[in-house]
Amino acid sequence: MSSLFTGLSAFPLTPLHDDAVDEAAFAGLIEGLAAAGVDSITALGSTGSYAYLTPEERAGVARLAVEHAGATPVFVGVGDLRGSRVLTHVDNAEAAGAAGVLLAPMTYQPLTADEVFELFRTVCEHTELPVIVYDNPETTHVTFTTDLYARIAELPGIASIKIPGVPVDPLRAQEHVAAIRAVIPEHVTIGVSGDAFAATGLNAGCEAWYSVIAGTLPEPALTITRAAQAGRADEAVAESERLAPLWELFAEFGGSLRVIAAIAEYLGLVPHQSLPLPIQGLTAPQRERVACVVDHLSLD
Amino acid sequence: MSSLFTGLSAFPLTPLHDDAVDEAAFAGLIEGLAAAGVDSITALGSTGSYAYLTPEERAGVARLAVEHAGATPVFVGVGDLRGSRVLTHVDNAEAAGAAGVLLAPMTYQPLTADEVFELFRTVCEHTELPVIVYDNPETTHVTFTTDLYARIAELPGIASIKIPGVPVDPLRAQEHVAAIRAVIPEHVTIGVSGDAFAATGLNAGCEAWYSVIAGTLPEPALTITRAAQAGRADEAVAESERLAPLWELFAEFGGSLRVIAAIAEYLGLVPHQSLPLPIQGLTAPQRERVACVVDHLSLD
Repeated sequence: MSSLFTGLSAFPLTPLHDDAVDEAAFAGLIEGLAAAGVDSITALGSTGSYAYLTPEERAGVARLAVEHAGATPVFVGVGDLRGSRVLTHVDNAEAAGAAGVLLAPMTYQPLTADEVFELFRTVCEHTELPVIVYDNPETTHVTFTTDLYARIAELPGIASIKIPGVPVDPLRAQEHVAAIRAVIPEHVTIGVSGDAFAATGLNAGCEAWYSVIAGTLPEPALTITRAAQAGRADEAVAESERLAPLWELFAEFGGSLRVIAAIAEYLGLVPHQSLPLPIQGLTAPQRERVACVVDHLSLD
Repeated sequence: MSSLFTGLSAFPLTPLHDDAVDEAAFAGLIEGLAAAGVDSITALGSTGSYAYLTPEERAGVARLAVEHAGATPVFVGVGDLRGSRVLTHVDNAEAAGAAGVLLAPMTYQPLTADEVFELFRTVCEHTELPVIVYDNPETTHVTFTTDLYARIAELPGIASIKIPGVPVDPLRAQEHVAAIRAVIPEHVTIGVSGDAFAATGLNAGCEAWYSVIAGTLPEPALTITRAAQAGRADEAVAESERLAPLWELFAEFGGSLRVIAAIAEYLGLVPHQSLPLPIQGLTAPQRERVACVVDHLSLD
Protein backbone atom coordinates (compact mmCIF):
# COMPACT_ATOMS: atom_id res chain seq x y z
CA MET A 1 0.00 0.00 0.00
CA SER A 2 1.91 3.02 -1.24
CA SER A 3 -0.51 5.82 -0.44
CA LEU A 4 0.57 8.55 1.94
CA PHE A 5 -2.87 8.20 3.43
CA THR A 6 -2.36 4.87 5.19
CA GLY A 7 -1.14 3.76 8.58
CA LEU A 8 -1.12 5.98 11.63
CA SER A 9 -1.78 9.69 11.28
CA ALA A 10 -1.23 11.54 14.56
CA PHE A 11 -3.38 14.55 15.43
CA PRO A 12 -1.43 16.83 17.78
CA LEU A 13 -2.98 19.46 20.02
CA THR A 14 -2.30 23.10 19.21
CA PRO A 15 -1.49 24.25 22.75
CA LEU A 16 -2.43 27.80 23.70
CA HIS A 17 -0.92 29.89 26.45
CA ASP A 18 -2.55 33.21 27.34
CA ASP A 19 -4.69 32.96 24.20
CA ALA A 20 -1.71 32.60 21.86
CA VAL A 21 -0.26 29.50 20.23
CA ASP A 22 2.58 28.10 22.35
CA GLU A 23 4.97 27.56 19.47
CA ALA A 24 7.71 25.89 21.50
CA ALA A 25 5.31 23.36 23.01
CA PHE A 26 3.77 22.68 19.61
CA ALA A 27 7.20 22.19 17.98
CA GLY A 28 8.09 19.78 20.79
CA LEU A 29 4.94 17.74 20.15
CA ILE A 30 5.75 17.51 16.45
CA GLU A 31 9.34 16.45 17.04
CA GLY A 32 8.17 13.76 19.45
CA LEU A 33 5.73 12.38 16.88
CA ALA A 34 8.32 12.30 14.12
CA ALA A 35 10.79 10.55 16.43
CA ALA A 36 8.18 7.99 17.46
CA GLY A 37 7.72 6.99 13.83
CA VAL A 38 4.09 7.79 13.08
CA ASP A 39 3.27 7.54 9.38
CA SER A 40 1.96 11.09 9.12
CA ILE A 41 1.04 14.08 11.25
CA THR A 42 -2.22 15.93 10.77
CA ALA A 43 -1.85 19.42 12.20
CA LEU A 44 -4.93 21.51 12.86
CA GLY A 45 -7.43 18.71 13.12
CA SER A 46 -10.26 19.04 15.59
CA THR A 47 -7.77 18.02 18.28
CA GLY A 48 -5.58 20.84 17.02
CA SER A 49 -8.40 23.36 17.59
CA TYR A 50 -8.27 24.62 14.01
CA ALA A 51 -11.81 25.97 14.23
CA TYR A 52 -10.81 28.47 16.94
CA LEU A 53 -7.68 29.94 15.33
CA THR A 54 -7.18 32.86 12.97
CA PRO A 55 -5.87 32.35 9.42
CA GLU A 56 -2.54 33.83 10.53
CA GLU A 57 -2.26 31.53 13.54
CA ARG A 58 -3.13 28.56 11.36
CA ALA A 59 -0.55 29.48 8.73
CA GLY A 60 2.08 29.72 11.47
CA VAL A 61 1.10 26.35 12.94
CA ALA A 62 1.26 24.71 9.51
CA ARG A 63 4.76 26.11 8.92
CA LEU A 64 5.96 24.98 12.36
CA ALA A 65 4.56 21.49 11.80
CA VAL A 66 6.37 21.03 8.51
CA GLU A 67 9.59 22.53 9.87
CA HIS A 68 9.71 20.18 12.86
CA ALA A 69 8.34 16.99 11.28
CA GLY A 70 11.50 16.08 9.39
CA ALA A 71 10.69 13.46 6.77
CA THR A 72 7.24 12.70 8.23
CA PRO A 73 4.51 14.00 5.91
CA VAL A 74 2.26 16.67 7.36
CA PHE A 75 -1.42 17.12 6.52
CA VAL A 76 -3.14 20.35 7.51
CA GLY A 77 -6.77 21.01 8.44
CA VAL A 78 -8.32 23.70 6.23
CA GLY A 79 -11.96 23.77 7.32
CA ASP A 80 -13.74 27.07 7.90
CA LEU A 81 -17.29 28.35 7.98
CA ARG A 82 -16.62 30.63 5.02
CA GLY A 83 -15.71 29.10 1.69
CA SER A 84 -13.25 31.80 0.68
CA ARG A 85 -11.37 31.36 3.94
CA VAL A 86 -11.08 27.62 3.29
CA LEU A 87 -9.17 28.51 0.12
CA THR A 88 -6.95 30.89 2.09
CA HIS A 89 -6.11 28.06 4.50
CA VAL A 90 -5.39 25.76 1.54
CA ASP A 91 -3.01 28.34 0.06
CA ASN A 92 -1.27 28.71 3.41
CA ALA A 93 -0.97 24.94 3.84
CA GLU A 94 0.56 24.67 0.35
CA ALA A 95 3.00 27.47 1.11
CA ALA A 96 3.99 25.72 4.34
CA GLY A 97 4.83 22.54 2.48
CA ALA A 98 1.93 20.35 3.53
CA ALA A 99 1.58 16.95 1.85
CA GLY A 100 -2.20 17.10 1.94
CA VAL A 101 -5.16 18.91 3.43
CA LEU A 102 -7.97 17.73 5.68
CA LEU A 103 -11.33 19.35 5.03
CA ALA A 104 -14.27 19.22 7.42
CA PRO A 105 -17.41 20.98 6.19
CA MET A 106 -17.90 23.26 9.18
CA THR A 107 -21.44 24.55 9.58
CA TYR A 108 -23.32 27.29 11.34
CA GLN A 109 -26.34 27.28 9.08
CA PRO A 110 -26.94 23.63 8.17
CA LEU A 111 -25.58 22.77 4.72
CA THR A 112 -27.28 20.66 2.09
CA ALA A 113 -25.48 17.67 0.56
CA ASP A 114 -25.09 19.66 -2.65
CA GLU A 115 -23.45 22.53 -0.77
CA VAL A 116 -21.04 20.12 0.95
CA PHE A 117 -20.21 18.56 -2.41
CA GLU A 118 -19.61 21.96 -4.02
CA LEU A 119 -17.27 22.92 -1.19
CA PHE A 120 -15.13 19.85 -1.84
CA ARG A 121 -15.32 20.44 -5.61
CA THR A 122 -14.13 24.03 -5.19
CA VAL A 123 -11.19 22.96 -3.04
CA CYS A 124 -10.18 20.14 -5.39
CA GLU A 125 -10.23 22.59 -8.30
CA HIS A 126 -8.19 25.10 -6.33
CA THR A 127 -5.27 22.92 -5.25
CA GLU A 128 -2.99 20.16 -6.44
CA LEU A 129 -2.70 18.87 -2.88
CA PRO A 130 -4.52 15.64 -2.05
CA VAL A 131 -7.62 16.15 0.09
CA ILE A 132 -8.84 14.10 3.03
CA VAL A 133 -12.62 14.18 3.52
CA TYR A 134 -13.20 14.82 7.20
CA ASP A 135 -16.51 13.34 8.38
CA ASN A 136 -16.95 14.50 11.98
CA PRO A 137 -20.66 14.77 12.74
CA GLU A 138 -20.09 15.62 16.43
CA THR A 139 -18.50 18.92 15.49
CA THR A 140 -19.78 19.73 11.99
CA HIS A 141 -23.32 18.35 12.33
CA VAL A 142 -23.09 17.26 8.70
CA THR A 143 -24.41 13.78 7.94
CA PHE A 144 -22.35 12.06 5.27
CA THR A 145 -24.36 9.35 3.60
CA THR A 146 -22.57 6.61 1.66
CA ASP A 147 -23.95 8.29 -1.43
CA LEU A 148 -22.29 11.58 -0.51
CA TYR A 149 -18.99 9.76 0.13
CA ALA A 150 -19.29 8.31 -3.36
CA ARG A 151 -20.00 11.64 -5.04
CA ILE A 152 -17.13 13.41 -3.29
CA ALA A 153 -14.64 10.56 -3.68
CA GLU A 154 -15.03 10.78 -7.47
CA LEU A 155 -13.50 14.25 -7.43
CA PRO A 156 -9.90 14.29 -8.63
CA GLY A 157 -7.71 15.13 -5.67
CA ILE A 158 -9.66 13.23 -3.04
CA ALA A 159 -7.19 10.86 -1.37
CA SER A 160 -8.88 9.54 1.74
CA ILE A 161 -12.02 9.61 3.85
CA LYS A 162 -11.83 9.98 7.61
CA ILE A 163 -14.86 8.14 8.93
CA PRO A 164 -16.21 8.67 12.44
CA GLY A 165 -15.91 5.17 13.86
CA VAL A 166 -17.22 1.77 12.94
CA PRO A 167 -19.71 -0.65 14.53
CA VAL A 168 -18.33 -2.40 17.62
CA ASP A 169 -19.05 -5.87 16.27
CA PRO A 170 -16.12 -6.97 14.02
CA LEU A 171 -18.31 -8.52 11.33
CA ARG A 172 -20.60 -5.51 11.17
CA ALA A 173 -17.53 -3.27 11.08
CA GLN A 174 -16.24 -5.23 8.07
CA GLU A 175 -19.58 -4.85 6.33
CA HIS A 176 -19.61 -1.13 7.06
CA VAL A 177 -16.11 -0.56 5.65
CA ALA A 178 -16.87 -2.80 2.67
CA ALA A 179 -20.03 -0.85 1.90
CA ILE A 180 -18.03 2.39 1.69
CA ARG A 181 -15.18 0.71 -0.21
CA ALA A 182 -17.69 -0.56 -2.77
CA VAL A 183 -18.70 2.95 -3.83
CA ILE A 184 -15.37 4.83 -3.83
CA PRO A 185 -12.36 4.60 -6.17
CA GLU A 186 -9.65 2.15 -5.17
CA HIS A 187 -7.01 4.85 -4.64
CA VAL A 188 -9.11 6.59 -1.99
CA THR A 189 -8.20 5.19 1.43
CA ILE A 190 -10.60 4.83 4.34
CA GLY A 191 -9.31 5.99 7.71
CA VAL A 192 -11.03 5.27 10.99
CA SER A 193 -11.32 7.85 13.74
CA GLY A 194 -12.81 7.66 17.19
CA ASP A 195 -9.83 6.06 18.92
CA ALA A 196 -11.86 3.47 20.78
CA PHE A 197 -12.91 2.06 17.40
CA ALA A 198 -9.45 2.07 15.85
CA ALA A 199 -8.42 -1.56 16.36
CA THR A 200 -11.78 -2.81 15.13
CA GLY A 201 -11.68 -0.37 12.21
CA LEU A 202 -8.16 -1.31 11.12
CA ASN A 203 -8.96 -5.01 11.47
CA ALA A 204 -12.10 -4.42 9.40
CA GLY A 205 -10.14 -3.04 6.47
CA CYS A 206 -9.55 0.65 7.16
CA GLU A 207 -6.17 1.53 5.68
CA ALA A 208 -5.53 4.42 8.06
CA TRP A 209 -6.20 5.56 11.60
CA TYR A 210 -6.65 9.29 12.07
CA SER A 211 -5.78 9.28 15.73
CA VAL A 212 -6.25 11.66 18.63
CA ILE A 213 -4.16 9.70 21.12
CA ALA A 214 -1.30 9.30 18.64
CA GLY A 215 -0.86 13.08 18.73
CA THR A 216 0.13 12.90 22.40
CA LEU A 217 0.74 9.20 23.08
CA PRO A 218 2.11 7.75 19.83
CA GLU A 219 3.48 4.47 21.26
CA PRO A 220 0.26 2.63 22.14
CA ALA A 221 -1.29 3.89 18.90
CA LEU A 222 1.68 2.49 16.95
CA THR A 223 1.33 -0.83 18.78
CA ILE A 224 -2.30 -1.11 17.64
CA THR A 225 -1.58 0.06 14.10
CA ARG A 226 1.46 -2.15 13.44
CA ALA A 227 -0.30 -5.22 14.86
CA ALA A 228 -3.36 -4.64 12.67
CA GLN A 229 -1.23 -3.97 9.58
CA ALA A 230 0.66 -7.26 10.15
CA GLY A 231 -2.59 -9.18 10.42
CA ARG A 232 -2.22 -9.74 14.16
CA ALA A 233 -5.79 -8.66 14.79
CA ASP A 234 -5.96 -10.10 18.30
CA GLU A 235 -2.89 -8.17 19.38
CA ALA A 236 -4.41 -4.91 18.11
CA VAL A 237 -7.61 -5.65 20.00
CA ALA A 238 -5.71 -6.58 23.16
CA GLU A 239 -3.83 -3.27 23.19
CA SER A 240 -7.07 -1.38 22.56
CA GLU A 241 -8.69 -3.29 25.43
CA ARG A 242 -5.78 -2.43 27.69
CA LEU A 243 -6.56 1.22 26.96
CA ALA A 244 -10.24 0.82 27.83
CA PRO A 245 -9.97 3.09 30.90
CA LEU A 246 -8.90 5.85 28.50
CA TRP A 247 -11.83 5.23 26.15
CA GLU A 248 -14.11 5.34 29.19
CA LEU A 249 -12.76 8.77 30.14
CA PHE A 250 -13.39 9.98 26.57
CA ALA A 251 -16.99 8.81 26.83
CA GLU A 252 -17.55 10.16 30.33
CA PHE A 253 -15.92 13.57 29.87
CA GLY A 254 -17.67 14.59 26.66
CA GLY A 255 -15.20 13.45 24.04
CA SER A 256 -11.50 13.05 23.55
CA LEU A 257 -10.31 16.66 23.36
CA ARG A 258 -10.50 17.71 27.00
CA VAL A 259 -9.07 14.37 28.14
CA ILE A 260 -6.11 14.34 25.76
CA ALA A 261 -5.36 17.98 26.64
CA ALA A 262 -5.42 17.07 30.33
CA ILE A 263 -3.04 14.17 29.63
CA ALA A 264 -0.63 16.41 27.69
CA GLU A 265 -0.81 18.97 30.49
CA TYR A 266 -0.24 16.29 33.15
CA LEU A 267 2.77 14.97 31.23
CA GLY A 268 4.19 18.50 30.93
CA LEU A 269 4.07 18.46 27.13
CA VAL A 270 1.88 21.56 26.95
CA PRO A 271 1.08 24.39 29.37
CA HIS A 272 -1.80 24.23 31.81
CA GLN A 273 -5.16 25.38 30.40
CA SER A 274 -3.99 24.80 26.86
CA LEU A 275 -7.42 24.79 25.18
CA PRO A 276 -9.07 27.86 23.65
CA LEU A 277 -11.75 29.51 25.79
CA PRO A 278 -14.69 29.14 26.13
CA ILE A 279 -13.54 25.51 26.40
CA GLN A 280 -12.48 25.30 30.01
CA GLY A 281 -10.80 21.93 30.06
CA LEU A 282 -11.46 19.36 32.77
CA THR A 283 -12.14 20.18 36.39
CA ALA A 284 -9.61 19.36 39.10
CA PRO A 285 -11.36 16.14 40.19
CA GLN A 286 -11.65 15.06 36.55
CA ARG A 287 -7.94 15.75 36.07
CA GLU A 288 -7.17 13.52 39.03
CA ARG A 289 -9.10 10.71 37.40
CA VAL A 290 -7.12 11.27 34.19
CA ALA A 291 -3.79 11.26 36.04
CA CYS A 292 -4.75 8.05 37.76
CA VAL A 293 -5.46 6.34 34.43
CA VAL A 294 -2.24 7.67 32.87
CA ASP A 295 -0.20 6.28 35.77
CA HIS A 296 -2.10 3.01 35.91
CA LEU A 297 -1.63 2.37 32.17
CA SER A 298 2.00 3.56 32.27
CA LEU A 299 1.30 6.09 29.52
CA ASP A 300 3.95 8.51 30.71
CA MET B 1 -42.97 48.32 29.34
CA SER B 2 -39.99 50.62 29.09
CA SER B 3 -37.25 48.16 28.21
CA LEU B 4 -35.40 48.59 24.94
CA PHE B 5 -35.77 44.87 24.60
CA THR B 6 -39.48 44.76 23.80
CA GLY B 7 -41.58 44.91 20.68
CA LEU B 8 -40.29 44.13 17.23
CA SER B 9 -36.56 43.68 16.66
CA ALA B 10 -35.74 43.31 12.97
CA PHE B 11 -32.86 41.08 11.87
CA PRO B 12 -31.51 42.31 8.53
CA LEU B 13 -29.44 40.27 6.14
CA THR B 14 -25.81 41.23 5.65
CA PRO B 15 -25.74 41.03 1.85
CA LEU B 16 -22.51 39.95 0.21
CA HIS B 17 -21.40 40.66 -3.33
CA ASP B 18 -18.29 38.91 -4.68
CA ASP B 19 -17.46 37.76 -1.15
CA ALA B 20 -17.47 41.29 0.31
CA VAL B 21 -20.17 43.06 2.31
CA ASP B 22 -22.38 45.13 0.01
CA GLU B 23 -22.39 48.23 2.16
CA ALA B 24 -24.83 50.22 0.03
CA ALA B 25 -27.39 47.43 0.02
CA PHE B 26 -26.97 46.92 3.77
CA ALA B 27 -27.38 50.65 4.47
CA GLY B 28 -30.51 50.62 2.36
CA LEU B 29 -31.97 47.74 4.36
CA ILE B 30 -31.28 49.58 7.62
CA GLU B 31 -32.84 52.81 6.40
CA GLY B 32 -35.92 50.92 5.29
CA LEU B 33 -36.30 49.30 8.71
CA ALA B 34 -35.91 52.58 10.58
CA ALA B 35 -38.46 54.24 8.28
CA ALA B 36 -40.91 51.38 8.79
CA GLY B 37 -40.87 51.96 12.53
CA VAL B 38 -39.50 48.72 13.96
CA ASP B 39 -38.64 49.01 17.66
CA SER B 40 -35.05 47.91 17.22
CA ILE B 41 -32.66 46.51 14.67
CA THR B 42 -30.40 43.56 15.44
CA ALA B 43 -27.50 43.59 13.03
CA LEU B 44 -25.34 40.51 12.63
CA GLY B 45 -27.82 37.99 13.91
CA SER B 46 -27.87 34.56 12.30
CA THR B 47 -29.84 36.14 9.46
CA GLY B 48 -27.01 38.67 9.22
CA SER B 49 -24.46 35.87 8.70
CA TYR B 50 -22.33 37.05 11.60
CA ALA B 51 -20.70 33.64 11.95
CA TYR B 52 -19.14 33.88 8.50
CA LEU B 53 -17.65 37.38 8.69
CA THR B 54 -14.26 38.62 9.88
CA PRO B 55 -13.94 40.88 12.92
CA GLU B 56 -13.17 43.79 10.58
CA GLU B 57 -16.22 43.12 8.42
CA ARG B 58 -18.38 42.85 11.51
CA ALA B 59 -17.07 46.11 12.95
CA GLY B 60 -17.85 47.83 9.67
CA VAL B 61 -21.38 46.39 9.55
CA ALA B 62 -22.03 47.49 13.13
CA ARG B 63 -20.92 51.04 12.32
CA LEU B 64 -23.05 51.15 9.17
CA ALA B 65 -26.09 49.90 11.06
CA VAL B 66 -25.83 52.57 13.74
CA GLU B 67 -25.11 55.30 11.18
CA HIS B 68 -28.17 54.48 9.09
CA ALA B 69 -30.66 53.55 11.82
CA GLY B 70 -31.36 57.10 12.95
CA ALA B 71 -33.08 56.99 16.34
CA THR B 72 -33.82 53.27 16.15
CA PRO B 73 -31.66 51.35 18.65
CA VAL B 74 -29.25 48.84 17.15
CA PHE B 75 -28.20 45.60 18.79
CA VAL B 76 -25.20 43.73 17.42
CA GLY B 77 -24.43 40.03 17.36
CA VAL B 78 -21.09 39.24 19.02
CA GLY B 79 -20.94 35.45 18.99
CA ASP B 80 -17.76 33.66 17.99
CA LEU B 81 -16.18 30.26 18.49
CA ARG B 82 -13.26 31.81 20.37
CA GLY B 83 -13.92 33.62 23.63
CA SER B 84 -11.31 36.32 23.12
CA ARG B 85 -12.81 37.19 19.75
CA VAL B 86 -16.26 37.54 21.34
CA LEU B 87 -14.75 40.30 23.47
CA THR B 88 -13.24 41.92 20.37
CA HIS B 89 -16.68 41.96 18.76
CA VAL B 90 -18.16 43.45 21.94
CA ASP B 91 -15.55 46.22 21.92
CA ASN B 92 -16.28 46.93 18.27
CA ALA B 93 -20.04 46.99 18.89
CA GLU B 94 -19.52 49.45 21.74
CA ALA B 95 -17.31 51.64 19.59
CA ALA B 96 -19.95 51.60 16.85
CA GLY B 97 -22.59 52.88 19.25
CA ALA B 98 -24.66 49.73 19.71
CA ALA B 99 -27.42 49.80 22.32
CA GLY B 100 -26.90 46.17 23.22
CA VAL B 101 -25.25 42.95 22.13
CA LEU B 102 -26.70 39.58 21.17
CA LEU B 103 -24.62 36.59 22.20
CA ALA B 104 -25.07 33.08 20.83
CA PRO B 105 -22.73 30.48 22.30
CA MET B 106 -21.30 29.20 19.03
CA THR B 107 -19.79 25.75 19.24
CA TYR B 108 -17.45 23.50 17.35
CA GLN B 109 -16.53 21.26 20.25
CA PRO B 110 -19.72 20.85 22.28
CA LEU B 111 -19.75 23.13 25.35
CA THR B 112 -20.88 22.20 28.83
CA ALA B 113 -23.51 24.29 30.61
CA ASP B 114 -20.78 25.64 32.90
CA GLU B 115 -18.73 26.74 29.89
CA VAL B 116 -21.74 28.50 28.36
CA PHE B 117 -22.43 30.23 31.67
CA GLU B 118 -18.80 31.35 32.00
CA LEU B 119 -18.88 32.79 28.49
CA PHE B 120 -21.88 34.96 29.40
CA ARG B 121 -20.29 35.89 32.74
CA THR B 122 -17.09 36.97 30.99
CA VAL B 123 -18.99 39.14 28.53
CA CYS B 124 -21.16 40.72 31.22
CA GLU B 125 -18.04 41.59 33.22
CA HIS B 126 -16.39 43.02 30.13
CA THR B 127 -19.07 45.46 28.98
CA GLU B 128 -21.65 47.91 30.25
CA LEU B 129 -23.86 47.12 27.28
CA PRO B 130 -26.97 45.06 27.93
CA VAL B 131 -26.74 41.49 26.66
CA ILE B 132 -29.37 39.42 24.88
CA VAL B 133 -29.03 35.67 25.43
CA TYR B 134 -29.35 34.06 22.02
CA ASP B 135 -30.73 30.52 22.26
CA ASN B 136 -30.53 29.10 18.74
CA PRO B 137 -30.09 25.33 18.97
CA GLU B 138 -30.35 24.84 15.19
CA THR B 139 -27.10 26.71 14.65
CA THR B 140 -25.24 26.52 17.99
CA HIS B 141 -26.27 22.98 19.02
CA VAL B 142 -26.36 24.22 22.62
CA THR B 143 -29.34 23.10 24.67
CA PHE B 144 -30.48 25.80 27.06
CA THR B 145 -32.41 24.29 29.92
CA THR B 146 -34.71 26.49 32.01
CA ASP B 147 -32.12 26.10 34.75
CA LEU B 148 -29.39 27.51 32.49
CA TYR B 149 -31.67 30.45 31.55
CA ALA B 150 -32.08 31.12 35.26
CA ARG B 151 -28.35 31.02 36.03
CA ILE B 152 -27.43 33.29 33.13
CA ALA B 153 -30.34 35.72 33.63
CA GLU B 154 -29.06 36.46 37.16
CA LEU B 155 -25.92 37.99 35.71
CA PRO B 156 -25.93 41.78 35.84
CA GLY B 157 -26.17 43.05 32.26
CA ILE B 158 -28.47 40.36 30.93
CA ALA B 159 -31.46 42.19 29.41
CA SER B 160 -33.37 39.64 27.39
CA ILE B 161 -33.54 36.03 26.28
CA LYS B 162 -34.23 35.15 22.67
CA ILE B 163 -36.02 31.81 22.81
CA PRO B 164 -36.31 29.50 19.80
CA GLY B 165 -40.08 29.33 19.42
CA VAL B 166 -42.94 28.23 21.60
CA PRO B 167 -45.41 25.31 21.51
CA VAL B 168 -48.05 25.70 18.80
CA ASP B 169 -50.94 25.32 21.24
CA PRO B 170 -51.70 28.74 22.83
CA LEU B 171 -52.21 27.38 26.34
CA ARG B 172 -49.05 25.31 26.25
CA ALA B 173 -47.23 28.35 24.84
CA GLN B 174 -48.43 30.39 27.82
CA GLU B 175 -47.24 27.71 30.23
CA HIS B 176 -43.87 27.57 28.49
CA VAL B 177 -43.32 31.33 28.67
CA ALA B 178 -44.60 31.43 32.28
CA ALA B 179 -42.17 28.67 33.26
CA ILE B 180 -39.23 30.72 31.97
CA ARG B 181 -40.64 33.95 33.43
CA ALA B 182 -40.89 32.28 36.85
CA VAL B 183 -37.14 31.69 37.07
CA ILE B 184 -35.69 34.92 35.61
CA PRO B 185 -35.62 38.46 37.02
CA GLU B 186 -38.53 40.71 36.06
CA HIS B 187 -36.37 43.16 34.10
CA VAL B 188 -35.19 40.42 31.73
CA THR B 189 -37.55 40.26 28.75
CA ILE B 190 -38.40 37.12 26.83
CA GLY B 191 -38.35 37.42 23.05
CA VAL B 192 -39.73 34.81 20.71
CA SER B 193 -37.98 33.80 17.53
CA GLY B 194 -38.91 31.39 14.79
CA ASP B 195 -41.22 33.69 12.87
CA ALA B 196 -44.00 31.12 12.45
CA PHE B 197 -44.31 31.07 16.26
CA ALA B 198 -44.28 34.83 16.74
CA ALA B 199 -47.98 35.57 17.03
CA THR B 200 -48.48 32.67 19.42
CA GLY B 201 -45.40 33.68 21.38
CA LEU B 202 -46.36 37.34 21.71
CA ASN B 203 -49.91 36.37 22.67
CA ALA B 204 -48.45 33.98 25.25
CA GLY B 205 -46.54 36.75 27.03
CA CYS B 206 -43.28 37.20 25.15
CA GLU B 207 -42.40 40.89 25.34
CA ALA B 208 -40.34 40.88 22.16
CA TRP B 209 -40.12 39.25 18.75
CA TYR B 210 -36.64 38.77 17.36
CA SER B 211 -37.73 38.57 13.77
CA VAL B 212 -36.18 37.32 10.56
CA ILE B 213 -38.96 38.55 8.28
CA ALA B 214 -38.98 42.00 9.88
CA GLY B 215 -35.42 42.49 8.61
CA THR B 216 -36.70 42.35 5.02
CA LEU B 217 -40.49 42.66 5.29
CA PRO B 218 -41.14 44.87 8.31
CA GLU B 219 -44.80 45.68 7.56
CA PRO B 220 -46.45 42.31 8.16
CA ALA B 221 -44.21 41.79 11.21
CA LEU B 222 -45.36 45.16 12.59
CA THR B 223 -48.98 44.20 11.97
CA ILE B 224 -48.56 41.06 14.07
CA THR B 225 -46.58 42.80 16.79
CA ARG B 226 -48.84 45.83 17.21
CA ALA B 227 -51.96 43.67 17.27
CA ALA B 228 -50.51 41.39 19.94
CA GLN B 229 -49.25 44.34 22.00
CA ALA B 230 -52.74 45.90 21.91
CA GLY B 231 -54.32 42.66 23.09
CA ARG B 232 -55.89 41.91 19.71
CA ALA B 233 -54.64 38.34 19.80
CA ASP B 234 -56.94 37.12 17.03
CA GLU B 235 -55.71 39.81 14.67
CA ALA B 236 -52.11 38.81 15.32
CA VAL B 237 -52.96 35.18 14.65
CA ALA B 238 -54.91 36.07 11.51
CA GLU B 239 -51.96 37.93 10.01
CA SER B 240 -49.63 35.07 10.93
CA GLU B 241 -52.03 32.62 9.28
CA ARG B 242 -52.15 34.79 6.17
CA LEU B 243 -48.36 34.35 6.00
CA ALA B 244 -48.60 30.55 6.32
CA PRO B 245 -47.26 30.00 2.77
CA LEU B 246 -44.12 31.80 3.88
CA TRP B 247 -43.75 29.64 7.02
CA GLU B 248 -44.21 26.59 4.80
CA LEU B 249 -41.34 27.70 2.58
CA PHE B 250 -39.16 28.16 5.68
CA ALA B 251 -39.97 24.60 6.75
CA GLU B 252 -39.56 23.10 3.29
CA PHE B 253 -36.34 24.87 2.29
CA GLY B 254 -34.31 24.15 5.43
CA GLY B 255 -34.96 27.26 7.51
CA SER B 256 -35.63 30.93 7.05
CA LEU B 257 -32.24 32.21 5.86
CA ARG B 258 -32.17 31.00 2.26
CA VAL B 259 -35.84 31.94 1.80
CA ILE B 260 -35.55 35.47 3.18
CA ALA B 261 -32.38 36.04 1.14
CA ALA B 262 -34.23 34.87 -1.98
CA ILE B 263 -37.07 37.28 -1.14
CA ALA B 264 -34.69 40.21 -0.65
CA GLU B 265 -32.95 39.28 -3.92
CA TYR B 266 -36.30 39.00 -5.73
CA LEU B 267 -37.36 42.41 -4.42
CA GLY B 268 -34.05 43.95 -5.53
CA LEU B 269 -33.06 44.91 -2.01
CA VAL B 270 -29.81 42.96 -2.14
CA PRO B 271 -27.66 41.56 -4.95
CA HIS B 272 -28.18 38.09 -6.40
CA GLN B 273 -26.30 35.31 -4.53
CA SER B 274 -26.05 37.45 -1.40
CA LEU B 275 -25.26 34.65 1.07
CA PRO B 276 -21.74 33.59 2.03
CA LEU B 277 -20.44 30.45 0.31
CA PRO B 278 -20.56 27.52 0.90
CA ILE B 279 -24.24 28.46 1.41
CA GLN B 280 -25.53 28.42 -2.16
CA GLY B 281 -28.96 29.94 -1.68
CA LEU B 282 -32.06 28.47 -3.25
CA THR B 283 -32.17 26.77 -6.64
CA ALA B 284 -33.95 28.40 -9.59
CA PRO B 285 -37.14 26.32 -9.17
CA GLN B 286 -37.17 27.08 -5.43
CA ARG B 287 -36.77 30.78 -6.19
CA GLU B 288 -39.78 30.60 -8.48
CA ARG B 289 -41.82 29.15 -5.65
CA VAL B 290 -40.65 31.99 -3.40
CA ALA B 291 -41.51 34.65 -5.97
CA CYS B 292 -44.94 33.15 -6.38
CA VAL B 293 -45.60 33.38 -2.63
CA VAL B 294 -44.26 36.94 -2.45
CA ASP B 295 -46.58 38.01 -5.26
CA HIS B 296 -49.55 36.07 -3.93
CA LEU B 297 -49.20 37.58 -0.45
CA SER B 298 -48.47 41.06 -1.87
CA LEU B 299 -45.25 41.26 0.11
CA ASP B 300 -43.54 43.49 -2.43
